[in-house]
This record gives sequence, C-alpha cells and structure tokens, in this order.
Amino acid sequence: MKIKVAILGATGRVGQEYLHMLKGHPWFEVVEATGNTKVGSKLGDIVPDLPQEIRTIEIKESDPSQIESDLVFSPLPSSVAREIESKFKRAGFGVITDASPHRMDEDTPLIIPEVNPDHLNILSSISSPTLPSDLKKRKRRRRGFIVATPNCTTVGLAMTLKPLHDAFDVRKVVMTSFQALSGAGYPGVPSLDIQDNVIPYIEGEEQKVANETNKLLGKYSQRTKSIKHSSIEIYCSCNRVAVIDGHLESVYLEANQEITNPEGVFESFTSLPQKLKLPSAPERPIIVRREIDRPQPRLDRMAGNGMSTIVGRIRQGQNKKTLQYHLLTHNTIRGAAGGAILTAELLCKQFGLL
Amino acid sequence: MKIKVAILGATGRVGQEYLHMLKGHPWFEVVEATGNTKVGSKLGDIVPDLPQEIRTIEIKESDPSQIESDLVFSPLPSSVAREIESKFKRAGFGVITDASPHRMDEDTPLIIPEVNPDHLNILSSISSPTLPSDLKKRKRRRRGFIVATPNCTTVGLAMTLKPLHDAFDVRKVVMTSFQALSGAGYPGVPSLDIQDNVIPYIEGEEQKVANETNKLLGKYSQRTKSIKHSSIEIYCSCNRVAVIDGHLESVYLEANQEITNPEGVFESFTSLPQKLKLPSAPERPIIVRREIDRPQPRLDRMAGNGMSTIVGRIRQGQNKKTLQYHLLTHNTIRGAAGGAILTAELLCKQFGLL
Amino acid sequence: MKIKVAILGATGRVGQEYLHMLKGHPWFEVVEATGNTKVGSKLGDIVPDLPQEIRTIEIKESDPSQIESDLVFSPLPSSVAREIESKFKRAGFGVITDASPHRMDEDTPLIIPEVNPDHLNILSSISSPTLPSDLKKRKRRRRGFIVATPNCTTVGLAMTLKPLHDAFDVRKVVMTSFQALSGAGYPGVPSLDIQDNVIPYIEGEEQKVANETNKLLGKYSQRTKSIKHSSIEIYCSCNRVAVIDGHLESVYLEANQEITNPEGVFESFTSLPQKLKLPSAPERPIIVRREIDRPQPRLDRMAGNGMSTIVGRIRQGQNKKTLQYHLLTHNTIRGAAGGAILTAELLCKQFGLL
Amino acid sequence: MKIKVAILGATGRVGQEYLHMLKGHPWFEVVEATGNTKVGSKLGDIVPDLPQEIRTIEIKESDPSQIESDLVFSPLPSSVAREIESKFKRAGFGVITDASPHRMDEDTPLIIPEVNPDHLNILSSISSPTLPSDLKKRKRRRRGFIVATPNCTTVGLAMTLKPLHDAFDVRKVVMTSFQALSGAGYPGVPSLDIQDNVIPYIEGEEQKVANETNKLLGKYSQRTKSIKHSSIEIYCSCNRVAVIDGHLESVYLEANQEITNPEGVFESFTSLPQKLKLPSAPERPIIVRREIDRPQPRLDRMAGNGMSTIVGRIRQGQNKKTLQYHLLTHNTIRGAAGGAILTAELLCKQFGLL
Repeated sequence: MKIKVAILGATGRVGQEYLHMLKGHPWFEVVEATGNTKVGSKLGDIVPDLPQEIRTIEIKESDPSQIESDLVFSPLPSSVAREIESKFKRAGFGVITDASPHRMDEDTPLIIPEVNPDHLNILSSISSPTLPSDLKKRKRRRRGFIVATPNCTTVGLAMTLKPLHDAFDVRKVVMTSFQALSGAGYPGVPSLDIQDNVIPYIEGEEQKVANETNKLLGKYSQRTKSIKHSSIEIYCSCNRVAVIDGHLESVYLEANQEITNPEGVFESFTSLPQKLKLPSAPERPIIVRREIDRPQPRLDRMAGNGMSTIVGRIRQGQNKKTLQYHLLTHNTIRGAAGGAILTAELLCKQFGLL
Repeated sequence: MKIKVAILGATGRVGQEYLHMLKGHPWFEVVEATGNTKVGSKLGDIVPDLPQEIRTIEIKESDPSQIESDLVFSPLPSSVAREIESKFKRAGFGVITDASPHRMDEDTPLIIPEVNPDHLNILSSISSPTLPSDLKKRKRRRRGFIVATPNCTTVGLAMTLKPLHDAFDVRKVVMTSFQALSGAGYPGVPSLDIQDNVIPYIEGEEQKVANETNKLLGKYSQRTKSIKHSSIEIYCSCNRVAVIDGHLESVYLEANQEITNPEGVFESFTSLPQKLKLPSAPERPIIVRREIDRPQPRLDRMAGNGMSTIVGRIRQGQNKKTLQYHLLTHNTIRGAAGGAILTAELLCKQFGLL
Repeated sequence: MKIKVAILGATGRVGQEYLHMLKGHPWFEVVEATGNTKVGSKLGDIVPDLPQEIRTIEIKESDPSQIESDLVFSPLPSSVAREIESKFKRAGFGVITDASPHRMDEDTPLIIPEVNPDHLNILSSISSPTLPSDLKKRKRRRRGFIVATPNCTTVGLAMTLKPLHDAFDVRKVVMTSFQALSGAGYPGVPSLDIQDNVIPYIEGEEQKVANETNKLLGKYSQRTKSIKHSSIEIYCSCNRVAVIDGHLESVYLEANQEITNPEGVFESFTSLPQKLKLPSAPERPIIVRREIDRPQPRLDRMAGNGMSTIVGRIRQGQNKKTLQYHLLTHNTIRGAAGGAILTAELLCKQFGLL
Repeated sequence: MKIKVAILGATGRVGQEYLHMLKGHPWFEVVEATGNTKVGSKLGDIVPDLPQEIRTIEIKESDPSQIESDLVFSPLPSSVAREIESKFKRAGFGVITDASPHRMDEDTPLIIPEVNPDHLNILSSISSPTLPSDLKKRKRRRRGFIVATPNCTTVGLAMTLKPLHDAFDVRKVVMTSFQALSGAGYPGVPSLDIQDNVIPYIEGEEQKVANETNKLLGKYSQRTKSIKHSSIEIYCSCNRVAVIDGHLESVYLEANQEITNPEGVFESFTSLPQKLKLPSAPERPIIVRREIDRPQPRLDRMAGNGMSTIVGRIRQGQNKKTLQYHLLTHNTIRGAAGGAILTAELLCKQFGLL
C-alpha cells in the first residue's frame, strides 16, 4: 500500500518535475493534482511523457475540500504558496513545500534530511498523524502541518557546514555563489542579460541563505519544543552565471577551534537518511573531489543522481581556524523536487506512516 | 620630442595590444620592436592595421645590444620574461613589464599609479636616468631598472582597498573572482571546458593576488629605501567564467575601525595620475554604480575607457567594521597594456624624462 | 535649420536606440516623443544618458493631433504599429517605420537606400511635401505617407542580391540564417532556451524575407506608378543562435547567366546614398572579406559603423551559374534604427526637404 | 563466445569513448588496446572509470604483429590513420574506422548500416573471414579489409536522403550546418573564438559531406563488385556554433519527382539493422518531431540513445518537387563511436562471424 500524494500546481514547471521524479517511487503514488489553469483537464493532456497510470488524473483547484491524499507536495510559486499552503494545513493536511513563505515560521520545520532530521520533532505536539481511511476521520483526528525545504543555494552550504560546525564550532562564513539559470525559473533570465556576462545580484537570496542556514544548524529543544537558531555570522554574495544547472559556491569560514582533516570530516559525514536507507538518499551526502579544479557544474552536477553535494578545492592557510572550499549542488534536483521528496520520505518513516 | 620606446615580443597577442594602444600617444613613440619569430620582417607584415609610421619597423631579436630606445615595454610571456627583462636591466634599460616574474623582487617597484606612486622611490638610488642621446652615453651613465605592474586580478582589488585601508585600516579580505576568458591568453580556455560551466581554479592566481596586494599597499621607507608590505589577511578564490573581457570580484572585508560612507570614500578617491593629468589616467579611478545589480562585465567594462574600476553592491551588515562590495576591472586594458602605459607615463613625469 | 522629427514609442527599447543614434545628427532634430506609458513625463527622466537638449521633451500620447514635427519615426512594436502609423499617415504625416505591418502594402515604398531608392517614386503622386510652418498648413496641403524599411534578416540578403541580380539575373536563392538574440527584442529569448542550443525557428520570418526581397528587387513602373515585384524563388531557413548582435546568413543561389568575378561585383557596388553622401551612408555598402573564415558576427558586425554588409566565403562549384557565400548585417543598426535613419536621409534629399 | 576486439589509439579521447561504449557489449569484448604513448602501461592507469576486466589490458604499439584480435576498431587521428590502418589491412585484419583517409577508397565500403548495408558486398571477394583460433591460421587464410564510417556531418544528411532518394529521385541538395564544438576534438575551438560568435568555416568538411553522401547513396554493382556513386548535386555550408554536442543541419532539396508525405517517408524508414535487431540499432533510424521549433540540439540529441536522426520543420512551398527540413545527429555517438560499433555489428552478422 503506497502513500497517496497530491501535487499542488502540478502543471507548472516545478510541478512537472515532481511528477517525473515520482515515477515508480516505491512509497509514494500520485493520485491527485491541482492547477490554477486547465482545471478539469486530464493531467496527461497538459504534461508530456507521463506514465499511463497518472495521465487520467483530473486537475482540480488548489482547494483542500477537494483533496483526499495522505500527503501534499507544494511546488507552488511563492506568490500564492503562503495562502494555499496555510489553507491545506488548517484543513488537516501534511504539506511538504519548497516554496519560501513558511520557511522561517517558528512552527514549520525547515529540513535537510541529513542536516537536521530531529527538527521534525517540532511537529511532535501533533497527535501522530495516521493515514486517513476517509476524509471524515482526518478532519476529526488530525492536525495539519507544513514542512519546508530550504532555498536551493542554502542546501549545499548547510550540508557542508553541518559536519564542520559539529566538529569545530564555525563562527563566521563568507559565501559567494555562481548560480545556474534554472534557479530563476522559466522564462527566467533573458539571454541578452546573461550572454557574455555575470549578474551580481539575486533578489532576496543573500538574506535567505544566511537566515535559513542558521535555522537549519539550530538545536531542537525538547523542553520548549522549538528551534534555537545557531548564530554563525554569514555573509553572502549571490550571483547569476551562464550555466544551465548546478549552483557552485565558494566558501571561506572561521571556526572557534582548529580545523583538522576537513576532507575526512566531509567524507565520513553520513546521517539518518543513509541509515534508514531512504529511497532517494544518496549513498554519500558529500562527495569530495581531489582534482585541483573541481567541482565544476557541468561535470559534477549529476553526481549521486543530483542528490549529493560535491566539495573540492579544500585548502587552509597558516591560520588553522580558517578553511576555504568550493561546493556544488544540483539546484533543481537536490535544491527543489529531489530535496522535498527525500524530506517526505524521512517524515513518513519517522512518523510511522509506512 | 617624444620618448622613444621599444616593445619586446611585439608580435605576440599582448604585444599587439601595446602597439594599438600607443597609436597617437602624446609622449611615446614606438621605434623598435622585438620578437622571437619573424626576426628581420617588417612589423606591418605581421601585425594588421598598424599606422603607416610603424609598419616599416624591423623586428629584432630581444637582445639589448640591438636596442637604443629610451624605454622598453615588456609584454613577454612569463616563461621568458625573467631572463630577457633582467638582461635589459643589466644593460642599463628602464623596463616596464606586466609579466609576473619580477613583481615581488625587492628592488622592483610594483606599481598601480593611483595606489602607490611613491614606490617608484625605490629607484631613487639610480642616478636620475636621462634620455640617451646615443648608446655609448647610456652604457656609461645609466643604471637599468624594472618597474612591474600587477596581475590583472590584483588591480581592481588593490585600487578599491587603497582608500578603504587609508581610512579604516583594513585587516582581512575575502575575495572571490569571476575572471574573463581573455585573462587566460590565446588559445587559452577550450570552449568545451567552459561552455555551460565555471572552472573554479586558476593556477597560481590566488597567491599572486594576496602577495601583490600587500606589496602594493605597503609603505615606502625613506630610511631603508624599501617597501614594508602591509599585512592584511587576504583569502582569494579565483574562478573562470564564460565572459570575454572584464574581471568581476566579490569582496568581503573587515577593518579595525568602523567603516562609514564607503561610497563617498570610493568616489572621492583621486591620486597623482589625476593631479598630473597623465594622458592615460581615467578621470575617476573608481566609479560607483548605485543600481542594485551592477557592475556587470559586459555593461561596465569599458567605463573610463577601460581604465576605471567600477564598484557596486556596496553593503554593510550590523557589524560596521565589515563591508561587502563587487568590483570590475577590464583585464586586458587596465589589467595589462593600459596599466603599463599609465605606469610609464607616471615614471617619465616623476623622473623628469619629459 | 534642421528637420524636426518625432519618435513614436520613444521610451521603448528600439525607440531609445533612435534617440541615441540621432544625437548630433546634422539634418534631424528630435523635438517630440510619444509613448504608451509615462505620458506627461520628461524624456530625460525615463531614458538614461540623453543629451541635454532633448531631456526636457515631454512624452505625449501617440496621437497625431498632438504632434507637429516634419517627419515621424516609428519604432513601434508590430502589434500597435499598423493602427498608429495609419492614423499619422491619414493626418498628413510622413512616417518612416521599421515595423512590419505596412511593408507589403502597395502604396508603401519598402526601401533599402542602396538597393531601390527609386521606389520612393511611389510617393510621387503626393504633392511634394513641404515643411509645415504650422499645423493648419500641413493639414490643408499635405498628404501623408508611410515609408517602410525591411526586416533585419532581409537587409543583407537584398543588399547582396541587388548587384548580382542586376548582373546575372538571379532566379533561385536558398538562405539559412544564424540570427542574433537582439533580433528578438527584450526580454526576448530566455537564456534557458538558447544556452548550449540553436532554435531552428523564428515565427513568420522566412516568409517575410522571401516576400520583402522580391519587393525590394522589383521594378518601379513609371506608367502604373507601382512596383512589379521580382520573381526569384527564395527558400529561407531562419534560426536563432547564441550571439548578441549580428545576423549571419549562408546563401546559395542560381542565376540565369554565368556568374563571373562575384568579389568584384560586390566590391564595386555603390549607390545613390554614397553618391549623395548621405550622413549615415557607409563608404562601402558591401565589404568583402577574403579570409577563409569570415565574416564572423563578433568580429565583423561593427564594420562600416554597423551600416555595411560584410560578405565572405564566396565560392563556386563547376556549375558557374551557381554561387555560395556568407553575409553578415548588424541587425539593430543597419537592420533597424540605422537603416530607417538612412532612409529618412534619402527621402529628405530626394524630396527637397532640405 | 564474444568476438575479441582491439582498439587502436585507445587512450585518445575518441578511443576512450569506444572503451566506454563497449562496456557490457553483448557481442564484442575488448581484449587489446594500442596507443602512441604510455606503451607498456595498463589501460586502467590511463583511462578513468573502466570496468575491472579491461583495466589490466597492457597498452601496445599500433603494430599488427602484436595484435591477435578478431576485429580492430580504429579511432585514430586522420594524420596517422592512413598508414596504420593500411598496415593492419595488409596483415589480414578487419578494420572498422571512423577516420577519413580511406573513406573514398574504391575497395573500402563506406557504411551507414541503415543506408547502404549492401555495400559490404565489396568485401565479398574476400574469402569469408573466420575467427582466427590462432595467429598462424589468420595469416594463412584471411585477407584483410577496411570498413569506414562517414564524417559526423554526413551521417544525418545521408540517413534522411536515403528514403527520399529512393522514393523521389533527389537531384540537388543545399545543406547548411550548425556543428557542435565536440566535433572539433579537444582542445578544439578556443572559447575566445566562439563565445558570442559563429565560425562560418570548417576545413575540408563541405567537400567531404558532398563526396561521402554520393558514395553512400551509390549502387553496388554485382557485376563489377564496385559502387557506382549517385550524382546528386550537393552544396554544403559548414559552420561551428556554441553548442556542446549535436550537429544541426538545415536542408533544401529538389527531386525529379513530386514529393508527397515526407513525414511518412521518414517515419516508415527502417532497414536491415532494425530487422536484424543489431544491439546498437535504434528502434527508429529517423524520428520526426512535429513541434514547430524542433529539432533542437540540447533537447533532442540523446533521442534513440544518440543513435537516431531527428527531423523536423518539414515544409514544402508551391513547387512540390522541393522540400525543406532540419535534421539533428549526435556527432560523437552516431557520428563516431556509436556508428562504428553498429557497423561492426552489421559486418559480423552479415559475414557469419557470430
């Protein structure tokens, strides 16, 4: 028996990625889809190359009263995500979102499964959700919730900071990004703007990365049932380059303790998703490349099926409390649909939904 | 009476840029050229689009005994620059070079005319060079010297640090570069390597930028007639992007004092080349763009005829001793031939060669 | 006394190009501007870097009753050009347009000044237009007209076919284009569509090029006061490539006569604009490059200040009635504002408006 | 029992592609490899990511006396291919090559398996080659041969012309190519040459495509045991664009008969490799895309695992004897290693080597 899932905004570009990534998923079965246009059409008439079994799903409005799935994925655009996701939550649904509006809400766990799986405990006040055998039961017995995944630029940074912070107590980070075109959606960046150019600004991005990273690296307090954010000083510079997929980041950091064997720290990092053998978990969350000129977006973005973070150019100067490295994350896989699906897998496993 | 100059390696790609940039120069007249191939040919047969008056210059070997010019520009490749430049120096010539080998030599001033014009004083032990009316006189009376210009990635960083350091005592810099393809020479970067990609490594570059910047920001001591390097901690990350010309740099820095009105500090920065009205000096060494997404390589690289450094995205967090900004320098103009010619102009003016 | 001109849609992207290209024009003076937004604002508040004298022009609606200029340039988008241009014509204005709607109208001369200057004779039924000393006079005495310039892809093709057709009677043309991004306007082509790609389709373009070329190469009949289109079979394939400016075209053609010395035919081509020394006329309408790998968009697009067509790779097989070559035209200069301004110069000169 | 194959020049870039494409091949087993450097080393020490079983193969010189395999693949550079391949032929080996030197030799079949499988009959004078159980036997009983595959730009053109020529008797073709960077090898095209540019010339390519296509579409004569080339007039224009993989071609053609239902002709085309179910044969040699803007290199190059030719924009004007279309072929798969492997499969099947 698979868990029945609904995709909100399924006909949008990111929504279609969810549909494709969930093809043949061992735990999840897409049974419902919503959209803001084409309501009433069949999914297969709008989205190309779908598996037979989901082509006939009728597109509904993004209205909780019409949805019966066990879990809801929300690849909605930010502009509408806040309101629609809140409605679904109030109606008792569990919503997994990669949109930004709820990420910093106190009662929304912001999750990278390898970094802070325990933050799901924020939801523990919720009486253990159960699979609704029918709609009435859910309405009576279940309280809804939202689980968010971070910005695509935050993912790789937080993933690599996690083992370093645990080991050496990081206190300051300076990160400069080289972000891919696909991160701006579609139509996104006009070709006339980026050809033979770099755009040294992405709206709101620098603040998001700083804030989200400190939430992700925060500690869950059993007593207050809340997250105490970490207080790393994080300085970001977010830039767009002419690369299709894959966010590259150049990182400088300072720790309170001397940093030793950072390669080993990265390579030995493994976490709950690996232990639980979640279906979408990469074998290694962080892959270290030792060549002098890696990671490179085009060559490395698909490592670990796009779910691993690739690290290279690890180097230290005379001050052993500082470290420099580059990292690469596939922004539309790990940084979007793939990250959300892995988060849903963790959630289901941890809350006994399977 | 113009100053007669020789171009070493004039038929190479950078050498040709010197020939073109010196067309119609008010002070300098190219009268000699050397090359490692085509010796004996006429310059106009090798280099296209030259002015009539220099087409008939015969290409000589890079041998000081065959050269009689007052000043020698050396756009030689690093591999041969050390040896040939040293020969010319020993033979009593003044050599202006943008090659790297001699940059960090103690007796070689490393000069950005707006940043450290006083470093030319290292040469003051040299009996004031005079225009040789004939070769014998020069051999008897003149001691040679080398004046170097910095790496193309160093220029913009040092230019912008100069007024900040003077005002606020900078102590740490983290710089991440987005460097243009032309910085790698020709044929340089294969298209298969950089298309849809970023290469996060440029050999030797990070160390050069750090070392050269501290030499440029150093103090000339009248007593020891030497430079005391500054001791800013500089962390660089040098990266190649698919841009034709223009090195963009993202800078984070910490100062010992609170930084106030950085825009004003940049915009009011002016120096000796502006005061002396040197022919190649830009009106403003640093141009501040206030738009939210500038500077951009394609849009801004030609500002100030490629001789200005463009700064934008100036921002501060809560800690007023830190600052972030982006800068852009045209790497083949200010970062190469243009920078060397401006340096020669300063040298001639300061040493009374005019 | 300069001719007073109005720019319709002056605040749009192409409109701004007209404003910049008309800076310091010896014959034309921009005195009025219209727009569909910002009506009532000053031009200088909307368009950056304008000369002092036109900054204070107030933006009006595109309504002929509010305009008093002698000549009207219409860089309007196709969607509104038909209606607005017709209104201005009916109101007695002379309109020069690079929009497509009126190009194939029988009473609209479609003009490349070097190719078919005599087509302006279509307008000869119009009582010689005079400079309106006031609005009433114009309304009483003048009949309006529209003069169109061709599609940016047509320009280079017709320019190079003209001397060949005159000499050898061309009967068939197969043209494949490599069109620049700027030809699609702004925001135009999404970067995600064109990066590492070619888009083998541009809506409506192939038919436009074929039809316009046969009109341009047609003969003006004094008797019928109309154009008899030529009947060359023209097969086009229009494609978008990742180039900022400059439309490259690969041409194959067949003539009814043997083609001899095509280089000479191209190079000796000169026409009325050159004879009249019109201010924007390039010295040579067609420049032949003899290198084996030219023309190239980035290297050659600015030849003749962007007003010349560059031809290269001229070659013939055994059949001397066939010819192959490549051509390049700057699509936003010769193919848009520059072409329209040159056309206006021709018009004014020929109709005694000066 | 698999057929033992040797790869000449296995450590070169194309050689490595053969090694990777032959991983797990059902019929062929790489047992020997040659190179012009690193002779004596193990293959696994030079080429990354090889399967365990071939890592220990020792690199030999390209000398037939040291090779014992049943079949030899030659991905050698043109400069050495002629001589080395001839040596192997004389020594009794069967050589499959994608190098150009022997392609137009009368006794060398030039093969696209779907287009002209019967051309292998040129080899029929050769006593049926048998698998050598030992070297002596081969030397005594076997005559060597070379089978060539065409230029990467020829493949898609000949593939699509084949069914059209059979049905409508094609007499003239005008083809303009948009060729990918990988077609120029590595380091190949400098990024400074192709960024924001198109290079309208590829040395020797246009003549190769014309000649090879007429050989491929030629008829095998049983009587003379030779190929009578077809005599289509073929005019090519070969151009390099900033695309990583995938050669796009724009085709215009004229036939002696009216062309009807070209889509159907393309889609129903199937040939011997499909009938024989050769392991590398694509299900459909030609895939027709009906969208208005396809094929596009980045979106379509991997169709049919890179072994199909994709056709789109099929259109006819009033003259029904003419046709226009675009085609796309993956130049490093179908146009190189993949094409050669499929050819070897056909050869082995047809000559009973299995």
